[in-house]
Amino acid sequence: VKLYEFGERVFQETNRGRKIAKLWIGESEEPTPAPIVEAGIQALREGKTKYTSAQGELALRQKLAQLNGVKPEQVFVTPGSKFAVFAALRSLCKPGDNVVTPAPSWPGYDAICGALGIELRTVRSTLEQRWRPEADAVEAAMDDRTRALIVCDPSNPTSTILEPSRMNDLAGRADRHGVPLLLDEAYRGLAFKEMGKPPRAGDGKVMRALSFSKGYAMTGWRCGFLLAHEEVIQSCVKFAQASISCVPQFVQAAALKALETPGIERKQARRFEERAKIAVEILRGTFDFVEPEAGFYLFAGRKGLDSDALCLRLLEKGIGVAPGTAFGYPEFLRISLTPEPVTLQESLRALVKEVKT
Amino acid sequence: VKLYEFGERVFQETNRGRKIAKLWIGESEEPTPAPIVEAGIQALREGKTKYTSAQGELALRQKLAQLNGVKPEQVFVTPGSKFAVFAALRSLCKPGDNVVTPAPSWPGYDAICGALGIELRTVRSTLEQRWRPEADAVEAAMDDRTRALIVCDPSNPTSTILEPSRMNDLAGRADRHGVPLLLDEAYRGLAFKEMGKPPRAGDGKVMRALSFSKGYAMTGWRCGFLLAHEEVIQSCVKFAQASISCVPQFVQAAALKALETPGIERKQARRFEERAKIAVEILRGTFDFVEPEAGFYLFAGRKGLDSDALCLRLLEKGIGVAPGTAFGYPEFLRISLTPEPVTLQESLRALVKEVKT
Repeated sequence: VKLYEFGERVFQETNRGRKIAKLWIGESEEPTPAPIVEAGIQALREGKTKYTSAQGELALRQKLAQLNGVKPEQVFVTPGSKFAVFAALRSLCKPGDNVVTPAPSWPGYDAICGALGIELRTVRSTLEQRWRPEADAVEAAMDDRTRALIVCDPSNPTSTILEPSRMNDLAGRADRHGVPLLLDEAYRGLAFKEMGKPPRAGDGKVMRALSFSKGYAMTGWRCGFLLAHEEVIQSCVKFAQASISCVPQFVQAAALKALETPGIERKQARRFEERAKIAVEILRGTFDFVEPEAGFYLFAGRKGLDSDALCLRLLEKGIGVAPGTAFGYPEFLRISLTPEPVTLQESLRALVKEVKT
Repeated sequence: VKLYEFGERVFQETNRGRKIAKLWIGESEEPTPAPIVEAGIQALREGKTKYTSAQGELALRQKLAQLNGVKPEQVFVTPGSKFAVFAALRSLCKPGDNVVTPAPSWPGYDAICGALGIELRTVRSTLEQRWRPEADAVEAAMDDRTRALIVCDPSNPTSTILEPSRMNDLAGRADRHGVPLLLDEAYRGLAFKEMGKPPRAGDGKVMRALSFSKGYAMTGWRCGFLLAHEEVIQSCVKFAQASISCVPQFVQAAALKALETPGIERKQARRFEERAKIAVEILRGTFDFVEPEAGFYLFAGRKGLDSDALCLRLLEKGIGVAPGTAFGYPEFLRISLTPEPVTLQESLRALVKEVKT
């Protein structure tokens, strides 16, 4: 089952009035933190309901530039990091080209590459390797039609974080092939421990796609950004002029407030670290997994599991869980630890019961 | 000068603190009407900050379906009608295909076709023809790589409305070639007089792209929609899953409120009809034009005019006007009648003075 088809099916069930526990989608159940909501409201009241530059509001780009060690010209404000990845790959690739990424990998990349007519080459890692991609295997997957190495760190779906040495190794391999490293850091703000400093974006060798969705609980606001070399950014801006025009002005104002309010991401991260502990406790023994180091997913496997069948069965019972097939691993499930603890515990216990019978 | 490059330049000037009279962009200077803003605020307070279906919220699609005589499955909610046109053409065309549209035509089509690698074939009309496209010429421009006939009605930039008989004629020509008519009706809500009933969308022969931007003064909210056959809609939804994910949830709630609040578009239309009268008075004798029948543009020409040079000169003086070159007519200007009357009068008088010296 493909993730987005599964998702649309859950939306349809919900529209029919069914209550589905939301362990299938990467979205906090808590509301967006109040300071951000209030900033959005204030911006609406101030009439910030007008077109902005297709690149994004200067004040927001300046703040993002300052926080990330790049220039405002190297920032492109997007409707979510998905659009940042889409626009970046669109500017790098022609149909028939390919990009390489470690697996398990986010189905968003399949969707994006499918839409662009490019090949997504996944390099499999295993639970036994603690989902660490082998740099040699990643390099071996590249050829002269490869246009980028995508690395999702922290990883969706495994919620693991790459050691800085391995990240540097991967960046070096990409560079040797003359292709940029596209770092997808949608979950960076939700790391449970200090992450290594990311390679600096802007020189053409590294691009970074980031999001307000996860760390600030702003999924439905649709705001993210791309950090990249000016040439790539200008190509993306041209694409924005042909498609979305810009991100809503008051959304950009709220995003700026999110950056200016200390501690939001840390608080969110602690919340999900707690929930990860709950999940580890319940799932241990029944499933195999690496304990999450970030974000809000737990990627759980079990020998002989048929994740498609299981997920459809669970959906009947009002529990939405994403099938591992969507990530290339049919014996796994991606479990979102986003529901509040009581629902989370009940759902996970029902899941354990279901696979044991 | 290309319109979007010109626009980014104006944004840069504004960022540097310069005040530029906004006669170059299609955007009301008035704030979004209060009931819509309040609905957005209420939705934010209610936590409508979550992902929605990539197709759009069911309640909004149901309302749009009811108002436009289609099924909710034939509605796709987009970040503006530009994205609706982009997604529709993307689903209809392969690189190397072409689409046909009467000129003068909105530069958005150039941007979209450029991004999709398809050819935009424009069929010129003249001021003397009152900008009415000749159906024979339109048909002659179609060949076996033509995938759609785009008609912008009311027209951006001329603000003229097609008679129903001509619209039917054009629709018939498209149908004879087996291609759909893609009706861009971004300005429909701002018609000064009753428009003919649009051809019904949904049967595969007609698609309609509409927007909340102009009629509801919601440009910076980024919300519009496409009405089309289910197959096209499903292809567009798949593209949304690969790019934008969805339109922000609270934006969709505000858009629904806009539809439920009577009289907003009519009030906006009357406001711009008044400003059109002001402009006609000041510009008559100096420029040639058809009096606007809708929207907020006046497309003004003058023999021997160099619109690029004039617009750059005006920009120096703090007046932003869009050059006709961007629409394929270098002796014309597209003047937005959106500033409040005093600024509008001053700007138009300065413009008249400028071309007369």
